[in-house]
Amino acid sequence: MTWVEGAAGSPYGVHNLPYGVFRHDGRAPRIGVRIGDFVLDLDGAEAADLILAGGALRRPVLNDFMALGPAQWGAVRARIVELLVGEEHRAEVQPLLVPLAEVELVLPFEVGDYVDFYSSEHHAANVGQIFRPGQPPLLPNWKHLPIGYHGRAGTVVVSGTSVVRPCGQRSTPDGPVFGPSQRLDIEAEVGFVVGVPSALGDRVPVGDFAKYVFGVVLVNDWSARDIQAWEYQPLGPFLGKSFATSVSPWVTPLAALADAWVAAPDQDPVVLDYLRDVPHVGLDLRLAVEWNGTRVSEPPFATMYWTPAQQLSHLTVNGASLRTGDLFASGTVSGPDRGQVGSFLELTWGGTEPVAVGDDPARSFLADGDTVTITATAPGPDGTTVALGEVTGTIQPARP
Amino acid sequence: MTWVEGAAGSPYGVHNLPYGVFRHDGRAPRIGVRIGDFVLDLDGAEAADLILAGGALRRPVLNDFMALGPAQWGAVRARIVELLVGEEHRAEVQPLLVPLAEVELVLPFEVGDYVDFYSSEHHAANVGQIFRPGQPPLLPNWKHLPIGYHGRAGTVVVSGTSVVRPCGQRSTPDGPVFGPSQRLDIEAEVGFVVGVPSALGDRVPVGDFAKYVFGVVLVNDWSARDIQAWEYQPLGPFLGKSFATSVSPWVTPLAALADAWVAAPDQDPVVLDYLRDVPHVGLDLRLAVEWNGTRVSEPPFATMYWTPAQQLSHLTVNGASLRTGDLFASGTVSGPDRGQVGSFLELTWGGTEPVAVGDDPARSFLADGDTVTITATAPGPDGTTVALGEVTGTIQPARP
Repeated sequence: MTWVEGAAGSPYGVHNLPYGVFRHDGRAPRIGVRIGDFVLDLDGAEAADLILAGGALRRPVLNDFMALGPAQWGAVRARIVELLVGEEHRAEVQPLLVPLAEVELVLPFEVGDYVDFYSSEHHAANVGQIFRPGQPPLLPNWKHLPIGYHGRAGTVVVSGTSVVRPCGQRSTPDGPVFGPSQRLDIEAEVGFVVGVPSALGDRVPVGDFAKYVFGVVLVNDWSARDIQAWEYQPLGPFLGKSFATSVSPWVTPLAALADAWVAAPDQDPVVLDYLRDVPHVGLDLRLAVEWNGTRVSEPPFATMYWTPAQQLSHLTVNGASLRTGDLFASGTVSGPDRGQVGSFLELTWGGTEPVAVGDDPARSFLADGDTVTITATAPGPDGTTVALGEVTGTIQPARP
Repeated sequence: MTWVEGAAGSPYGVHNLPYGVFRHDGRAPRIGVRIGDFVLDLDGAEAADLILAGGALRRPVLNDFMALGPAQWGAVRARIVELLVGEEHRAEVQPLLVPLAEVELVLPFEVGDYVDFYSSEHHAANVGQIFRPGQPPLLPNWKHLPIGYHGRAGTVVVSGTSVVRPCGQRSTPDGPVFGPSQRLDIEAEVGFVVGVPSALGDRVPVGDFAKYVFGVVLVNDWSARDIQAWEYQPLGPFLGKSFATSVSPWVTPLAALADAWVAAPDQDPVVLDYLRDVPHVGLDLRLAVEWNGTRVSEPPFATMYWTPAQQLSHLTVNGASLRTGDLFASGTVSGPDRGQVGSFLELTWGGTEPVAVGDDPARSFLADGDTVTITATAPGPDGTTVALGEVTGTIQPARP
């Protein structure tokens, strides 16, 4: 039990300990770990020799620390627990605790490549039914490989960053026109952050997931559906997605999610060998989507058809190398029910079935000034709950 | 006229001066500029105060220098010419010339995001005819916007890096199978390197191309056609491309290509305002593709339908920001004739019309051990020629 005020019993107790990067008192960004409603200044802790990480905690981003690998991640985590639970270091550690309310959280890692998968069967089938009614909801390749594509790493932003409504081309009966997107949407996703790099030409076996992946963030893959619909043939989404992708400021280490692994949905047909993960498990992350304060959906990550380990092995099976900071997201998380979908496209069935949001009885896509916040929790050890922070963003009007 | 031995009259004379990063004598990578068959050590030149660039030339990559912007690019270039032409600094400069034969050229810049366009009408139409015979060769959006997608920045490699044949899924009549790609191809392209960053939410007007783009590289966007064909619906190419993208080691600054601008093909229908470039110009770069020493194609970059300035304004019209080191490539460069195509898919018409390569009378896609080299030249001032270096790579067998 930690001595940090208010942290025992919190979903940010010593069983969680997500990493982030914060600004405080006008100083340069520093690495910290969240405990209750405080941030433990890990830069300060390493400077004081309370934690030894070869200087990796004294950087403005998590990358050097994430590159150290599972053994050192484990050692640092164990040491942090020791500092926050034992009384013998309390006098030294206490001054390194900064109230969360006083800090600004910044993008916690330098993003290498950003890949976005499309791994929810319910989401893919919903999109298929909305856009290709009367045809098979899934394309022929969907159950054979985790479909994915590269997104824009340079526009991955931290939670809280405003999102300017994108302009672009959309198709009309009179031909394409230019203007602000009229179908601005969200995609509630879970992102995995690569710590340990791999060499060009190598593959990461499906069983080696935990040797490479450091942790998890929440992702909102903002999407302009009208721009996307016009541009995406034949090379996929581009400007409909590249204007902004928001991530939560806290990277939850895999170690905090050890109790969250659950059997993933059975896969039929049987997948090719390089995708066969034993055990075939996903994470029981329970997402929630709030639209201007109204909880409109609770997407269950455990229902994802393709698992994170399968995504990683697929991503590298052609010899593509991994860099520290690579981010791969799950794709929109949608469960089987309307109240479990991860996009407003699905929630309002292509905009044809508006929903009540706050005082507004009928909303479909995002209006200027709207705020969307995605949160998630997971089961922790001994009946505890692990919270994964939040990813939030507010829509600003398009620029003239 | 330069005093550097053999450089006067060379396509790498003082009218060219491409930048690169080299290793020599076991020392750390340094920035250099090519003059004839020598590399002028710019790290050494700045260290000796022969050139002033605020330390930007004393880095292991070009990024800091590229971020300085057009005024400083111009000043440094003018100073380099002064050093190589005037006799007064010859005694100090001569020791900074390293024979090209003695250096190893490395990746000259840290790649931000890598975007690949699809801007040759001939290429897009050829691909359409090969894959969708009997249908309109171009999709409805093609002439309204420069189609593009994000590729994998982390697997952009420098010319000379071997390319391991990728493994992956391909479709067969009996269902998908896993194995080495059997249709490994090239794409001869031209890449543009961003120097000056832009802010999130801003757009780069079509007329501001030269304020942001530093220079040009040659690109070979290696492509596994069988992997690509099976995976690309609906989110675009992924593993069929992400295993490797090769770039030339020399970044030719736009200033060296001032005489290479030519009228671009007329565009019909008229494009939307944000894409209207005046003058509507492309670059007269003449590419050549050698397959195991046989020159199989001479793709003319001047035939590209969408211009580099249009590509950049499209890329940012949704507010996507630019980072120094962002690379956007043209897409396969193909002219109207079979001898002008930039991919073997087109050269052999989907593999159905093999070509003679060296002693082999009938080749379609790449075999292990094959080497492909792409070069290019452009018209320089006063009847000179500007050479853009080369991008070369050899196929290694797939790994078990």
